Amino acid sequence: MQADDAIAELAQRTRIVLVRTSHPGNIGAAARAMKTMGLERLYLVAPLHYPHPDATARATWADDVLERARVCATLEEAIADCTFVVGASARQRTLPWPLYDARGAAERVAAANEETAVVFGPEQSGLDNLELERCAALLQIPANAAYGSLNLAAAVQIVAYELRMAARSGAQSPETPLATAAELEYFYSHLQRVMEAADFLDPGNPKHLMRRMRRLFNRARLDQNELNILRGLLAAYDKPRPPR
Amino acid sequence: MQADDAIAELAQRTRIVLVRTSHPGNIGAAARAMKTMGLERLYLVAPLHYPHPDATARATWADDVLERARVCATLEEAIADCTFVVGASARQRTLPWPLYDARGAAERVAAANEETAVVFGPEQSGLDNLELERCAALLQIPANAAYGSLNLAAAVQIVAYELRMAARSGAQSPETPLATAAELEYFYSHLQRVMEAADFLDPGNPKHLMRRMRRLFNRARLDQNELNILRGLLAAYDKPRPPR
Repeated sequence: MQADDAIAELAQRTRIVLVRTSHPGNIGAAARAMKTMGLERLYLVAPLHYPHPDATARATWADDVLERARVCATLEEAIADCTFVVGASARQRTLPWPLYDARGAAERVAAANEETAVVFGPEQSGLDNLELERCAALLQIPANAAYGSLNLAAAVQIVAYELRMAARSGAQSPETPLATAAELEYFYSHLQRVMEAADFLDPGNPKHLMRRMRRLFNRARLDQNELNILRGLLAAYDKPRPPR
Repeated sequence: MQADDAIAELAQRTRIVLVRTSHPGNIGAAARAMKTMGLERLYLVAPLHYPHPDATARATWADDVLERARVCATLEEAIADCTFVVGASARQRTLPWPLYDARGAAERVAAANEETAVVFGPEQSGLDNLELERCAALLQIPANAAYGSLNLAAAVQIVAYELRMAARSGAQSPETPLATAAELEYFYSHLQRVMEAADFLDPGNPKHLMRRMRRLFNRARLDQNELNILRGLLAAYDKPRPPR
């Protein structure tokens, strides 16, 4: 898939949901932020003032996104047909929800093929706990601990940017799906067997090297081709070899 | 180095320069965007209206960044003591300058230890050619080809965010420098020898597998520890083994 196609595909199934937004200017600026990154589907849940000239002014040339925005009475209505809902959260939450940073959430959205909503709460208070419980995961934008209060449209801009970056980089290996978690586990146990057979693991601390290897290959996000090559290498180690 | 220290170090030597900004609200919003990501040093070159209540209002709690902003008459003055100057550019330019995307530019800034300026032009026209010629490199934010016009403060937000992400990820492997290009070449030739000895390379197309392996490990950006473990594994393959 070409990068542009990957972004268009993601845009088709990914909506931005703004809940109880106070300032209509932020709605317009969010529409503009979305459009600059190729996103188009904006949902507004019970906006305080909308439509409003401030929204139109700040949208500039993204007025088409604004005009097609769907206004809903409740969050439930806005996310009814979604299979993945992620809620933006500025604060540490005690909810035991999966927590992604913006990049990780975007990679998760780009990798799946799901109807997805990214939900942003009101400017002052953020999403309330009932709303967060509608989300399958939380998203946090890494920010200054002393002042992490991003403007709403700025937060939408970063998330939309990361979605575009993730779709683009996902498109770079078109034919090759990523290795699944189960396949990776199989690879890690094979790797561990080879390391043990080679007297390479420290028996006093066997997990240390494996942890480093896991961190390395998790970071690299192996695709199936790459995994097959690495497994072939491990298998070659197991084979009897001609004498040297 | 801890992540927070890495960000503070980067913030100390990195300034954001806004040139001939038309709307004072954008100056305030840019100050807020900077502060949310831990940046503090704002330079304003010949702003059209400044100081201005719109700037103060949009800065919200980043008024300290705004108050300490340095107003300069010319770009030369604002970047006089910088050793790396990168100019944001929305359009394709014919200048034969090094071109980074936002992420690449941030990685470049984080990796070096230089007094750095990231320069943003006026909202409508961007930096002019004389101003771009003062820059050592250009920065482009990947955006919708049909509508790539980010709001100025939104562009500052993305660049500040990528600077924070780059400083943080540079800090994640504190004691362990990245493998050098020469070390990687040595590793790749060792890997190729092992693959050949294991009859694993296709003699008709020997470079194909190696190209995939290079792409994988370049993407992962190996540190020295990881490289040592992988080289240990290859060395174990070379060693004579007990009969099975």
